[in-house]
Amino acid sequence: MTSPFQPRDPAYESRVRESFGRQALMRTIGAELARVEPGRVEIALPYRDDLTQQHGYLHAGITSTIADSAGGYAGYSLFSAGSSVLTVEFKINLLAPAAGERFLAVGEVVRPGRTLTICRLEVSALKGEQRTLIAMGQQTLICLEGTPDR
Amino acid sequence: MTSPFQPRDPAYESRVRESFGRQALMRTIGAELARVEPGRVEIALPYRDDLTQQHGYLHAGITSTIADSAGGYAGYSLFSAGSSVLTVEFKINLLAPAAGERFLAVGEVVRPGRTLTICRLEVSALKGEQRTLIAMGQQTLICLEGTPDR
Amino acid sequence: MTSPFQPRDPAYESRVRESFGRQALMRTIGAELARVEPGRVEIALPYRDDLTQQHGYLHAGITSTIADSAGGYAGYSLFSAGSSVLTVEFKINLLAPAAGERFLAVGEVVRPGRTLTICRLEVSALKGEQRTLIAMGQQTLICLEGTPDR
Amino acid sequence: MTSPFQPRDPAYESRVRESFGRQALMRTIGAELARVEPGRVEIALPYRDDLTQQHGYLHAGITSTIADSAGGYAGYSLFSAGSSVLTVEFKINLLAPAAGERFLAVGEVVRPGRTLTICRLEVSALKGEQRTLIAMGQQTLICLEGTPDR
Repeated sequence: MTSPFQPRDPAYESRVRESFGRQALMRTIGAELARVEPGRVEIALPYRDDLTQQHGYLHAGITSTIADSAGGYAGYSLFSAGSSVLTVEFKINLLAPAAGERFLAVGEVVRPGRTLTICRLEVSALKGEQRTLIAMGQQTLICLEGTPDR
Repeated sequence: MTSPFQPRDPAYESRVRESFGRQALMRTIGAELARVEPGRVEIALPYRDDLTQQHGYLHAGITSTIADSAGGYAGYSLFSAGSSVLTVEFKINLLAPAAGERFLAVGEVVRPGRTLTICRLEVSALKGEQRTLIAMGQQTLICLEGTPDR
Repeated sequence: MTSPFQPRDPAYESRVRESFGRQALMRTIGAELARVEPGRVEIALPYRDDLTQQHGYLHAGITSTIADSAGGYAGYSLFSAGSSVLTVEFKINLLAPAAGERFLAVGEVVRPGRTLTICRLEVSALKGEQRTLIAMGQQTLICLEGTPDR
Repeated sequence: MTSPFQPRDPAYESRVRESFGRQALMRTIGAELARVEPGRVEIALPYRDDLTQQHGYLHAGITSTIADSAGGYAGYSLFSAGSSVLTVEFKINLLAPAAGERFLAVGEVVRPGRTLTICRLEVSALKGEQRTLIAMGQQTLICLEGTPDR
Protein backbone atom coordinates (compact mmCIF):
# COMPACT_ATOMS: atom_id res chain seq x y z
CA MET A 1 0.00 0.00 0.00
CA THR A 2 1.77 3.13 -1.17
CA SER A 3 0.34 6.60 -0.88
CA PRO A 4 0.98 9.21 -3.56
CA PHE A 5 1.51 11.76 -0.79
CA GLN A 6 4.46 12.46 1.44
CA PRO A 7 3.27 13.67 4.87
CA ARG A 8 5.04 16.75 6.25
CA ASP A 9 4.59 15.48 9.79
CA PRO A 10 5.99 11.96 10.32
CA ALA A 11 3.70 11.61 13.34
CA TYR A 12 0.65 12.19 11.13
CA GLU A 13 -1.15 9.05 12.23
CA SER A 14 -1.01 9.67 15.97
CA ARG A 15 -1.97 13.30 15.34
CA VAL A 16 -5.04 12.19 13.36
CA ARG A 17 -5.99 9.52 15.91
CA GLU A 18 -5.63 11.92 18.79
CA SER A 19 -7.83 14.55 17.11
CA PHE A 20 -10.42 11.95 16.10
CA GLY A 21 -10.50 10.89 19.75
CA ARG A 22 -11.60 14.41 20.64
CA GLN A 23 -14.52 14.43 18.16
CA ALA A 24 -17.16 13.64 20.76
CA LEU A 25 -19.72 12.99 18.03
CA MET A 26 -17.72 10.00 16.75
CA ARG A 27 -18.10 8.29 20.12
CA THR A 28 -21.77 9.26 20.32
CA ILE A 29 -22.57 7.52 17.04
CA GLY A 30 -20.09 4.66 17.52
CA ALA A 31 -17.75 5.53 14.62
CA GLU A 32 -14.18 4.25 14.58
CA LEU A 33 -11.07 5.32 12.75
CA ALA A 34 -10.35 2.22 10.69
CA ARG A 35 -7.31 3.23 8.69
CA VAL A 36 -5.01 6.23 8.43
CA GLU A 37 -2.63 6.72 5.49
CA PRO A 38 -1.12 9.93 4.17
CA GLY A 39 -4.03 11.62 2.39
CA ARG A 40 -6.47 8.76 2.93
CA VAL A 41 -8.63 7.93 5.93
CA GLU A 42 -11.31 5.32 6.53
CA ILE A 43 -14.01 5.54 9.18
CA ALA A 44 -16.20 2.56 10.07
CA LEU A 45 -19.65 2.77 11.59
CA PRO A 46 -21.79 -0.19 12.68
CA TYR A 47 -25.52 0.16 11.95
CA ARG A 48 -27.60 1.34 14.88
CA ASP A 49 -31.36 1.79 15.13
CA ASP A 50 -30.99 5.16 16.75
CA LEU A 51 -29.17 6.68 13.77
CA THR A 52 -31.92 6.13 11.22
CA GLN A 53 -34.32 8.17 9.16
CA GLN A 54 -38.02 7.42 8.82
CA HIS A 55 -37.61 4.26 6.69
CA GLY A 56 -35.06 2.64 8.98
CA TYR A 57 -32.02 3.40 6.81
CA LEU A 58 -28.98 5.23 8.12
CA HIS A 59 -29.85 8.95 8.04
CA ALA A 60 -28.21 10.84 5.16
CA GLY A 61 -26.86 13.23 7.78
CA ILE A 62 -24.90 10.42 9.44
CA THR A 63 -23.65 9.16 6.09
CA SER A 64 -22.49 12.74 5.52
CA THR A 65 -20.99 12.98 9.00
CA ILE A 66 -18.63 10.05 8.56
CA ALA A 67 -17.81 11.14 5.00
CA ASP A 68 -17.00 14.66 6.22
CA SER A 69 -14.77 13.40 9.04
CA ALA A 70 -12.99 10.91 6.76
CA GLY A 71 -12.20 13.66 4.26
CA GLY A 72 -11.27 16.14 6.97
CA TYR A 73 -8.74 13.76 8.50
CA ALA A 74 -7.43 12.72 5.08
CA GLY A 75 -6.53 16.36 4.55
CA TYR A 76 -5.31 16.85 8.11
CA SER A 77 -2.91 13.89 7.73
CA LEU A 78 -0.97 15.97 5.20
CA PHE A 79 -0.91 19.18 7.24
CA SER A 80 2.03 20.22 9.36
CA ALA A 81 2.04 19.69 13.12
CA GLY A 82 0.59 22.76 14.82
CA SER A 83 -2.11 23.36 12.21
CA SER A 84 -5.78 22.52 12.23
CA VAL A 85 -8.47 21.75 9.67
CA LEU A 86 -11.94 23.12 8.93
CA THR A 87 -14.48 21.99 6.34
CA VAL A 88 -15.25 24.85 3.96
CA GLU A 89 -17.98 22.97 2.11
CA PHE A 90 -18.95 19.58 0.80
CA LYS A 91 -21.41 18.11 -1.65
CA ILE A 92 -22.74 14.59 -1.43
CA ASN A 93 -24.90 12.43 -3.67
CA LEU A 94 -26.88 9.70 -1.94
CA LEU A 95 -26.70 6.87 -4.48
CA ALA A 96 -28.63 4.07 -2.80
CA PRO A 97 -30.56 3.45 0.42
CA ALA A 98 -28.14 3.25 3.34
CA ALA A 99 -28.99 -0.34 4.28
CA GLY A 100 -26.27 -2.50 5.81
CA GLU A 101 -24.68 -3.94 8.91
CA ARG A 102 -21.71 -1.60 8.73
CA PHE A 103 -20.78 1.53 6.83
CA LEU A 104 -17.36 2.53 5.62
CA ALA A 105 -16.49 6.12 4.73
CA VAL A 106 -13.33 6.79 2.72
CA GLY A 107 -11.86 10.27 2.38
CA GLU A 108 -9.06 10.78 -0.13
CA VAL A 109 -7.11 13.90 -0.94
CA VAL A 110 -7.22 14.70 -4.65
CA ARG A 111 -5.37 17.97 -4.51
CA PRO A 112 -3.44 19.06 -1.44
CA GLY A 113 -2.68 22.74 -1.06
CA ARG A 114 -1.09 25.18 1.33
CA THR A 115 -4.44 26.83 2.08
CA LEU A 116 -7.12 24.64 0.46
CA THR A 117 -7.24 20.87 0.08
CA ILE A 118 -9.81 19.06 -2.06
CA CYS A 119 -11.02 15.55 -1.18
CA ARG A 120 -13.13 12.85 -2.72
CA LEU A 121 -15.57 11.13 -0.38
CA GLU A 122 -17.18 7.70 -0.68
CA VAL A 123 -19.42 5.77 1.68
CA SER A 124 -20.22 2.08 1.25
CA ALA A 125 -22.69 -0.17 3.03
CA LEU A 126 -21.42 -3.62 4.00
CA LYS A 127 -23.68 -6.63 4.45
CA GLY A 128 -21.91 -9.95 4.79
CA GLU A 129 -19.60 -10.13 1.78
CA GLN A 130 -21.57 -7.52 -0.14
CA ARG A 131 -20.33 -3.94 -0.52
CA THR A 132 -22.52 -1.25 -2.05
CA LEU A 133 -21.49 2.31 -2.78
CA ILE A 134 -24.20 4.42 -1.15
CA ALA A 135 -22.78 7.93 -1.35
CA MET A 136 -20.08 9.93 -3.05
CA GLY A 137 -18.98 13.48 -2.47
CA GLN A 138 -16.47 16.26 -2.87
CA GLN A 139 -15.11 18.40 -0.09
CA THR A 140 -13.06 21.57 0.29
CA LEU A 141 -10.94 21.91 3.43
CA ILE A 142 -8.99 24.85 4.77
CA CYS A 143 -5.73 24.50 6.68
CA LEU A 144 -5.30 26.90 9.59
CA GLU A 145 -1.52 27.19 9.95
CA GLY A 146 -0.34 28.10 13.42
CA THR A 147 -3.70 27.21 14.93
CA PRO A 148 -3.10 23.98 16.83
CA ASP A 149 -5.90 21.48 16.76
CA ARG A 150 -6.29 21.64 20.52
CA MET B 1 -47.42 34.46 7.53
CA THR B 2 -48.34 33.37 4.03
CA SER B 3 -46.64 30.62 2.07
CA PRO B 4 -46.19 30.87 -1.68
CA PHE B 5 -47.14 27.19 -1.94
CA GLN B 6 -50.48 25.45 -1.81
CA PRO B 7 -50.11 22.00 -0.23
CA ARG B 8 -51.79 19.14 -2.08
CA ASP B 9 -52.47 17.35 1.18
CA PRO B 10 -54.39 19.52 3.70
CA ALA B 11 -53.05 17.26 6.48
CA TYR B 12 -49.47 18.10 5.49
CA GLU B 13 -48.43 19.21 8.96
CA SER B 14 -49.49 16.08 10.81
CA ARG B 15 -47.95 13.96 8.03
CA VAL B 16 -44.64 15.80 8.43
CA ARG B 17 -44.73 15.61 12.23
CA GLU B 18 -45.57 11.94 12.20
CA SER B 19 -42.71 11.13 9.82
CA PHE B 20 -40.27 13.31 11.78
CA GLY B 21 -41.30 11.35 14.87
CA ARG B 22 -40.06 8.19 13.17
CA GLN B 23 -36.61 9.64 12.38
CA ALA B 24 -34.86 7.96 15.28
CA LEU B 25 -31.76 10.09 14.73
CA MET B 26 -33.70 13.27 15.57
CA ARG B 27 -34.45 11.91 19.05
CA THR B 28 -30.88 10.69 19.45
CA ILE B 29 -29.45 14.15 18.87
CA GLY B 30 -32.29 16.03 20.59
CA ALA B 31 -33.65 17.82 17.51
CA GLU B 32 -37.18 19.16 17.46
CA LEU B 33 -39.55 20.14 14.69
CA ALA B 34 -40.04 23.81 15.46
CA ARG B 35 -42.28 24.97 12.64
CA VAL B 36 -44.05 23.41 9.67
CA GLU B 37 -45.48 25.50 6.84
CA PRO B 38 -46.18 24.50 3.24
CA GLY B 39 -42.74 24.29 1.67
CA ARG B 40 -40.89 25.55 4.75
CA VAL B 41 -39.74 23.66 7.83
CA GLU B 42 -37.66 24.65 10.84
CA ILE B 43 -35.75 22.24 13.07
CA ALA B 44 -34.25 23.34 16.40
CA LEU B 45 -31.34 21.66 18.14
CA PRO B 46 -29.94 22.60 21.56
CA TYR B 47 -26.14 22.47 21.86
CA ARG B 48 -24.80 19.29 23.39
CA ASP B 49 -21.21 18.35 24.23
CA ASP B 50 -21.59 14.93 22.69
CA LEU B 51 -22.35 16.31 19.21
CA THR B 52 -19.11 18.20 18.75
CA GLN B 53 -15.99 18.03 16.63
CA GLN B 54 -12.47 18.34 17.95
CA HIS B 55 -12.68 22.08 18.78
CA GLY B 56 -15.92 21.82 20.74
CA TYR B 57 -18.15 23.25 18.00
CA LEU B 58 -21.17 21.42 16.65
CA HIS B 59 -19.88 18.86 14.13
CA ALA B 60 -20.44 19.88 10.49
CA GLY B 61 -22.16 16.53 10.03
CA ILE B 62 -24.81 17.45 12.61
CA THR B 63 -25.25 20.89 11.08
CA SER B 64 -25.78 19.05 7.80
CA THR B 65 -28.11 16.52 9.40
CA ILE B 66 -30.61 19.10 10.64
CA ALA B 67 -30.30 21.05 7.38
CA ASP B 68 -30.98 17.90 5.36
CA SER B 69 -34.02 16.95 7.46
CA ALA B 70 -35.41 20.50 7.36
CA GLY B 71 -35.15 20.56 3.56
CA GLY B 72 -36.49 17.04 3.19
CA TYR B 73 -39.59 17.84 5.22
CA ALA B 74 -40.05 21.18 3.48
CA GLY B 75 -40.33 19.22 0.23
CA TYR B 76 -42.40 16.45 1.80
CA SER B 77 -44.93 19.01 3.08
CA LEU B 78 -45.88 19.70 -0.55
CA PHE B 79 -46.08 16.06 -1.63
CA SER B 80 -49.33 14.16 -1.85
CA ALA B 81 -50.41 11.77 0.90
CA GLY B 82 -49.11 8.28 0.13
CA SER B 83 -45.77 9.47 -1.22
CA SER B 84 -42.36 9.57 0.38
CA VAL B 85 -39.20 11.64 0.06
CA LEU B 86 -35.52 10.84 -0.46
CA THR B 87 -32.55 13.18 -0.60
CA VAL B 88 -30.81 12.91 -3.98
CA GLU B 89 -27.93 15.18 -3.03
CA PHE B 90 -27.05 18.30 -1.11
CA LYS B 91 -24.23 20.78 -0.92
CA ILE B 92 -23.45 22.83 2.13
CA ASN B 93 -21.04 25.67 2.91
CA LEU B 94 -19.96 26.00 6.52
CA LEU B 95 -19.78 29.77 6.95
CA ALA B 96 -18.73 30.19 10.56
CA PRO B 97 -17.82 28.04 13.56
CA ALA B 98 -20.95 26.34 14.88
CA ALA B 99 -20.83 27.96 18.31
CA GLY B 100 -24.09 28.63 20.11
CA GLU B 101 -26.63 27.56 22.70
CA ARG B 102 -29.14 26.46 20.09
CA PHE B 103 -29.13 25.85 16.35
CA LEU B 104 -31.96 26.45 13.93
CA ALA B 105 -32.11 24.80 10.52
CA VAL B 106 -34.50 26.19 7.92
CA GLY B 107 -35.40 24.28 4.78
CA GLU B 108 -37.33 26.10 2.06
CA VAL B 109 -38.60 24.83 -1.25
CA VAL B 110 -37.41 27.00 -4.13
CA ARG B 111 -38.80 24.91 -6.94
CA PRO B 112 -41.33 22.16 -6.32
CA GLY B 113 -41.75 19.51 -8.99
CA ARG B 114 -43.61 16.31 -9.69
CA THR B 115 -40.40 14.25 -9.50
CA LEU B 116 -37.68 16.57 -8.21
CA THR B 117 -37.90 19.37 -5.65
CA ILE B 118 -35.09 21.85 -4.99
CA CYS B 119 -34.60 23.42 -1.55
CA ARG B 120 -32.50 26.11 0.02
CA LEU B 121 -31.01 25.26 3.42
CA GLU B 122 -29.83 27.58 6.15
CA VAL B 123 -28.54 26.90 9.66
CA SER B 124 -28.10 29.60 12.28
CA ALA B 125 -26.49 29.53 15.71
CA LEU B 126 -28.38 31.29 18.50
CA LYS B 127 -26.70 32.73 21.58
CA GLY B 128 -28.86 34.96 23.74
CA GLU B 129 -30.31 37.53 21.35
CA GLN B 130 -27.60 36.95 18.77
CA ARG B 131 -28.25 34.96 15.61
CA THR B 132 -25.41 33.98 13.26
CA LEU B 133 -25.77 32.24 9.93
CA ILE B 134 -23.36 29.30 10.15
CA ALA B 135 -24.24 27.24 7.08
CA MET B 136 -26.12 27.47 3.82
CA GLY B 137 -26.89 24.79 1.29
CA GLN B 138 -28.86 23.52 -1.66
CA GLN B 139 -30.64 20.21 -1.85
CA THR B 140 -32.31 18.06 -4.47
CA LEU B 141 -35.15 15.79 -3.32
CA ILE B 142 -37.03 13.06 -5.16
CA CYS B 143 -40.69 12.30 -4.57
CA LEU B 144 -41.60 8.62 -4.61
CA GLU B 145 -45.26 8.61 -5.60
CA GLY B 146 -47.24 5.61 -4.42
CA THR B 147 -44.52 4.70 -1.91
CA PRO B 148 -46.01 5.56 1.47
CA ASP B 149 -43.62 6.97 4.02
CA ARG B 150 -44.23 4.06 6.40
CA MET C 1 -30.65 50.87 -3.01
CA THR C 2 -28.42 50.16 -0.05
CA SER C 3 -25.88 47.38 0.13
CA PRO C 4 -25.16 45.60 3.42
CA PHE C 5 -21.44 45.71 2.54
CA GLN C 6 -18.91 48.49 2.77
CA PRO C 7 -16.34 48.16 -0.05
CA ARG C 8 -12.70 48.51 1.01
CA ASP C 9 -11.82 50.03 -2.35
CA PRO C 10 -13.96 53.10 -3.18
CA ALA C 11 -13.12 52.54 -6.86
CA TYR C 12 -14.63 49.05 -6.72
CA GLU C 13 -16.97 49.60 -9.66
CA SER C 14 -14.34 50.71 -12.15
CA ARG C 15 -12.06 47.92 -10.95
CA VAL C 16 -14.81 45.36 -11.58
CA ARG C 17 -15.73 46.84 -14.97
CA GLU C 18 -12.13 46.96 -16.06
CA SER C 19 -11.54 43.31 -15.12
CA PHE C 20 -14.79 42.20 -16.73
CA GLY C 21 -13.62 43.97 -19.89
CA ARG C 22 -10.61 41.65 -19.93
CA GLN C 23 -12.71 38.46 -19.70
CA ALA C 24 -12.53 37.69 -23.41
CA LEU C 25 -15.22 35.02 -23.03
CA MET C 26 -17.79 37.64 -22.00
CA ARG C 27 -17.35 39.40 -25.36
CA THR C 28 -17.40 36.08 -27.21
CA ILE C 29 -20.80 35.15 -25.82
CA GLY C 30 -22.18 38.72 -25.80
CA ALA C 31 -22.52 39.09 -22.03
CA GLU C 32 -22.68 42.55 -20.43
CA LEU C 33 -22.06 43.82 -16.94
CA ALA C 34 -25.49 45.20 -16.11
CA ARG C 35 -25.08 46.37 -12.54
CA VAL C 36 -22.29 46.59 -9.99
CA GLU C 37 -22.94 47.19 -6.29
CA PRO C 38 -20.77 46.31 -3.31
CA GLY C 39 -21.15 42.55 -3.00
CA ARG C 40 -23.73 42.25 -5.78
CA VAL C 41 -23.23 42.02 -9.53
CA GLU C 42 -25.63 41.42 -12.42
CA ILE C 43 -24.64 40.12 -15.84
CA ALA C 44 -27.04 40.20 -18.79
CA LEU C 45 -26.89 37.90 -21.81
CA PRO C 46 -29.14 38.07 -24.86
CA TYR C 47 -30.22 34.71 -26.28
CA ARG C 48 -28.17 33.51 -29.23
CA ASP C 49 -28.60 30.40 -31.36
CA ASP C 50 -24.92 29.58 -31.17
CA LEU C 51 -24.95 29.21 -27.36
CA THR C 52 -27.49 26.40 -27.20
CA GLN C 53 -27.62 22.75 -26.29
CA GLN C 54 -29.34 20.08 -28.38
CA HIS C 55 -32.92 21.24 -27.66
CA GLY C 56 -32.29 24.87 -28.53
CA TYR C 57 -32.14 26.11 -24.93
CA LEU C 58 -29.19 28.05 -23.55
CA HIS C 59 -26.52 25.49 -22.66
CA ALA C 60 -26.23 24.81 -18.92
CA GLY C 61 -22.54 25.61 -19.27
CA ILE C 62 -23.34 29.15 -20.41
CA THR C 63 -25.91 29.58 -17.65
CA SER C 64 -23.12 28.51 -15.30
CA THR C 65 -20.60 30.80 -16.98
CA ILE C 66 -22.57 33.97 -16.37
CA ALA C 67 -23.50 32.82 -12.86
CA ASP C 68 -19.84 32.12 -12.07
CA SER C 69 -18.70 35.52 -13.38
CA ALA C 70 -21.49 37.36 -11.55
CA GLY C 71 -20.52 35.72 -8.27
CA GLY C 72 -16.82 36.19 -8.88
CA TYR C 73 -17.22 39.92 -9.46
CA ALA C 74 -19.62 40.26 -6.54
CA GLY C 75 -16.81 38.95 -4.36
CA TYR C 76 -14.13 40.95 -6.16
CA SER C 77 -16.09 44.18 -5.58
CA LEU C 78 -15.38 43.79 -1.85
CA PHE C 79 -11.69 42.94 -2.21
CA SER C 80 -8.94 45.50 -1.79
CA ALA C 81 -7.25 47.10 -4.79
CA GLY C 82 -4.23 45.02 -5.78
CA SER C 83 -5.90 41.67 -5.13
CA SER C 84 -7.48 39.19 -7.50
CA VAL C 85 -10.19 36.55 -7.37
CA LEU C 86 -10.38 32.86 -8.28
CA THR C 87 -13.35 30.50 -8.14
CA VAL C 88 -12.63 27.61 -5.78
CA GLU C 89 -15.82 25.74 -6.60
CA PHE C 90 -19.48 26.20 -7.37
CA LYS C 91 -22.62 24.12 -7.43
CA ILE C 92 -25.61 24.92 -9.58
CA ASN C 93 -29.11 23.50 -9.90
CA LEU C 94 -30.79 23.92 -13.27
CA LEU C 95 -34.39 24.58 -12.28
CA ALA C 96 -36.15 25.04 -15.60
CA PRO C 97 -35.32 24.98 -19.32
CA ALA C 98 -33.24 28.03 -20.21
CA ALA C 99 -35.74 29.48 -22.65
CA GLY C 100 -35.92 33.26 -23.05
CA GLU C 101 -34.94 36.35 -24.98
CA ARG C 102 -32.45 37.44 -22.35
CA PHE C 103 -30.81 35.94 -19.30
CA LEU C 104 -29.84 37.71 -16.12
CA ALA C 105 -27.30 36.29 -13.69
CA VAL C 106 -27.10 37.72 -10.18
CA GLY C 107 -24.19 37.03 -7.86
CA GLU C 108 -24.48 38.09 -4.23
CA VAL C 109 -21.99 37.78 -1.43
CA VAL C 110 -23.48 35.99 1.56
CA ARG C 111 -20.34 35.86 3.66
CA PRO C 112 -17.28 37.92 2.83
CA GLY C 113 -13.98 36.84 4.29
CA ARG C 114 -10.31 37.70 4.25
CA THR C 115 -9.41 34.50 2.39
CA LEU C 116 -12.72 32.91 1.32
CA THR C 117 -15.94 34.54 0.19
CA ILE C 118 -19.21 32.66 -0.28
CA CYS C 119 -21.79 33.79 -2.86
CA ARG C 120 -25.31 32.92 -3.83
CA LEU C 121 -25.96 32.69 -7.58
CA GLU C 122 -29.24 33.03 -9.47
CA VAL C 123 -30.00 33.08 -13.18
CA SER C 124 -33.35 34.13 -14.61
CA ALA C 125 -34.76 33.93 -18.12
CA LEU C 126 -36.62 37.01 -19.36
CA LYS C 127 -39.32 36.88 -22.04
CA GLY C 128 -41.33 40.06 -22.46
CA GLU C 129 -42.56 40.90 -18.97
CA GLN C 130 -42.06 37.37 -17.72
CA ARG C 131 -39.15 36.44 -15.49
CA THR C 132 -38.41 32.81 -14.62
CA LEU C 133 -35.75 31.58 -12.23
CA ILE C 134 -33.85 28.95 -14.23
CA ALA C 135 -30.83 28.26 -12.04
CA MET C 136 -29.53 28.77 -8.55
CA GLY C 137 -26.13 28.06 -7.10
CA GLN C 138 -23.54 28.54 -4.40
CA GLN C 139 -19.96 29.50 -4.96
CA THR C 140 -16.73 29.67 -2.97
CA LEU C 141 -14.17 32.30 -4.00
CA ILE C 142 -10.61 32.85 -2.87
CA CYS C 143 -9.00 36.27 -2.61
CA LEU C 144 -5.37 36.47 -3.69
CA GLU C 145 -4.00 39.42 -1.73
CA GLY C 146 -1.03 41.13 -3.35
CA THR C 147 -1.72 39.46 -6.69
CA PRO C 148 -3.05 42.23 -8.89
CA ASP C 149 -5.79 41.26 -11.31
CA ARG C 150 -3.65 42.22 -14.30
CA MET D 1 -10.97 -1.16 -22.97
CA THR D 2 -14.05 -2.66 -21.39
CA SER D 3 -16.91 -0.67 -19.96
CA PRO D 4 -18.70 -1.80 -16.81
CA PHE D 5 -21.99 -0.81 -18.45
CA GLN D 6 -24.14 -2.55 -21.03
CA PRO D 7 -25.88 0.04 -23.23
CA ARG D 8 -29.60 -0.52 -23.80
CA ASP D 9 -29.36 1.01 -27.26
CA PRO D 10 -26.70 -0.69 -29.45
CA ALA D 11 -26.59 2.47 -31.57
CA TYR D 12 -25.59 4.52 -28.52
CA GLU D 13 -22.52 6.02 -30.16
CA SER D 14 -24.22 7.41 -33.24
CA ARG D 15 -27.07 8.68 -31.05
CA VAL D 16 -24.57 10.53 -28.82
CA ARG D 17 -22.60 11.89 -31.79
CA GLU D 18 -25.74 13.06 -33.53
CA SER D 19 -27.00 14.89 -30.43
CA PHE D 20 -23.59 16.42 -29.75
CA GLY D 21 -23.65 17.68 -33.34
CA ARG D 22 -26.80 19.63 -32.49
CA GLN D 23 -25.23 21.36 -29.45
CA ALA D 24 -24.49 24.59 -31.26
CA LEU D 25 -22.35 25.79 -28.36
CA MET D 26 -19.85 22.97 -28.92
CA ARG D 27 -19.16 24.29 -32.45
CA THR D 28 -19.02 27.86 -31.16
CA ILE D 29 -16.25 27.07 -28.70
CA GLY D 30 -14.52 24.48 -30.91
CA ALA D 31 -15.15 21.43 -28.73
CA GLU D 32 -15.02 17.94 -30.21
CA LEU D 33 -16.38 14.60 -29.12
CA ALA D 34 -13.16 12.64 -28.67
CA ARG D 35 -14.37 9.29 -27.41
CA VAL D 36 -17.71 7.63 -26.72
CA GLU D 37 -18.00 4.44 -24.67
CA PRO D 38 -20.99 3.12 -22.73
CA GLY D 39 -21.17 5.37 -19.68
CA ARG D 40 -18.00 7.31 -20.50
CA VAL D 41 -17.48 10.27 -22.84
CA GLU D 42 -14.49 12.49 -23.56
CA ILE D 43 -14.67 15.98 -25.03
CA ALA D 44 -11.57 17.78 -26.29
CA LEU D 45 -11.18 21.54 -26.54
CA PRO D 46 -8.19 23.41 -27.98
CA TYR D 47 -7.20 26.56 -26.13
CA ARG D 48 -8.50 29.77 -27.67
CA ASP D 49 -7.88 33.36 -26.60
CA ASP D 50 -11.54 34.23 -26.88
CA LEU D 51 -12.60 31.69 -24.20
CA THR D 52 -10.54 33.15 -21.38
CA GLN D 53 -11.10 34.91 -18.08
CA GLN D 54 -9.23 38.03 -16.98
CA HIS D 55 -5.85 36.30 -16.42
CA GLY D 56 -5.78 34.57 -19.79
CA TYR D 57 -6.74 31.11 -18.48
CA LEU D 58 -9.69 29.16 -19.82
CA HIS D 59 -12.80 30.56 -18.12
CA ALA D 60 -14.16 28.31 -15.34
CA GLY D 61 -17.50 28.48 -17.15
CA ILE D 62 -16.00 26.84 -20.24
CA THR D 63 -14.24 24.22 -18.13
CA SER D 64 -17.67 23.58 -16.62
CA THR D 65 -19.34 23.57 -20.03
CA ILE D 66 -17.25 20.73 -21.44
CA ALA D 67 -17.44 18.84 -18.14
CA ASP D 68 -21.23 19.17 -18.13
CA SER D 69 -21.56 17.98 -21.74
CA ALA D 70 -19.15 15.07 -21.17
CA GLY D 71 -21.16 13.89 -18.17
CA GLY D 72 -24.50 14.48 -19.90
CA TYR D 73 -23.50 12.35 -22.87
CA ALA D 74 -21.94 9.68 -20.64
CA GLY D 75 -25.37 9.31 -19.07
CA TYR D 76 -27.21 9.61 -22.38
CA SER D 77 -25.11 6.79 -23.86
CA LEU D 78 -26.83 4.41 -21.42
CA PHE D 79 -30.36 5.68 -22.02
CA SER D 80 -32.78 3.99 -24.37
CA ALA D 81 -33.41 5.31 -27.87
CA GLY D 82 -36.27 7.79 -27.79
CA SER D 83 -35.27 9.37 -24.48
CA SER D 84 -33.43 12.59 -23.74
CA VAL D 85 -31.20 13.93 -20.98
CA LEU D 86 -31.20 17.05 -18.80
CA THR D 87 -28.70 18.17 -16.21
CA VAL D 88 -30.38 18.48 -12.81
CA GLU D 89 -27.32 19.94 -11.09
CA PHE D 90 -23.57 19.75 -10.93
CA LYS D 91 -20.79 20.82 -8.60
CA ILE D 92 -17.28 21.49 -9.73
CA ASN D 93 -14.01 22.25 -7.95
CA LEU D 94 -11.44 24.23 -9.92
CA LEU D 95 -8.19 22.63 -8.81
CA ALA D 96 -5.56 24.54 -10.77
CA PRO D 97 -5.36 27.39 -13.27
CA ALA D 98 -6.74 26.25 -16.63
CA ALA D 99 -3.50 26.76 -18.55
CA GLY D 100 -2.78 24.49 -21.50
CA GLU D 101 -2.82 23.93 -25.23
CA ARG D 102 -5.79 21.58 -25.06
CA PHE D 103 -8.35 20.55 -22.49
CA LEU D 104 -9.92 17.17 -22.05
CA ALA D 105 -13.17 16.66 -20.16
CA VAL D 106 -14.14 13.15 -19.06
CA GLY D 107 -17.63 12.28 -17.88
CA GLU D 108 -18.19 8.88 -16.31
CA VAL D 109 -21.36 7.34 -15.00
CA VAL D 110 -20.97 6.18 -11.41
CA ARG D 111 -24.54 5.12 -10.83
CA PRO D 112 -26.99 4.72 -13.68
CA GLY D 113 -30.68 4.77 -12.86
CA ARG D 114 -34.05 4.66 -14.52
CA THR D 115 -34.78 8.27 -13.58
CA LEU D 116 -31.55 9.73 -12.20
CA THR D 117 -27.96 9.05 -13.24
CA ILE D 118 -24.93 10.26 -11.28
CA CYS D 119 -21.65 11.09 -13.02
CA ARG D 120 -18.12 11.96 -12.05
CA LEU D 121 -16.53 14.77 -14.06
CA GLU D 122 -12.85 15.53 -14.61
CA VAL D 123 -11.12 18.12 -16.77
CA SER D 124 -7.39 18.06 -17.53
CA ALA D 125 -5.12 20.57 -19.22
CA LEU D 126 -2.64 19.19 -21.75
CA LYS D 127 0.63 20.89 -22.60
CA GLY D 128 3.07 18.85 -24.64
CA GLU D 129 3.38 15.58 -22.75
CA GLN D 130 2.15 17.09 -19.50
CA ARG D 131 -1.35 16.44 -18.20
CA THR D 132 -2.72 18.34 -15.20
CA LEU D 133 -6.05 17.73 -13.52
CA ILE D 134 -7.66 21.18 -13.39
CA ALA D 135 -11.23 20.41 -12.31
CA MET D 136 -13.34 17.67 -10.84
CA GLY D 137 -17.05 17.49 -10.33
CA GLN D 138 -20.21 15.53 -9.68
CA GLN D 139 -23.36 15.72 -11.71
CA THR D 140 -26.96 14.54 -11.46
CA LEU D 141 -28.81 13.85 -14.71
CA ILE D 142 -32.46 13.08 -15.37
CA CYS D 143 -33.64 10.78 -18.13
CA LEU D 144 -36.78 11.89 -19.90
CA GLU D 145 -38.26 8.64 -21.23
CA GLY D 146 -40.48 9.03 -24.28
CA THR D 147 -39.10 12.50 -24.96
CA PRO D 148 -36.89 12.11 -28.02
CA ASP D 149 -33.77 14.19 -28.08
CA ARG D 150 -34.88 16.00 -31.24
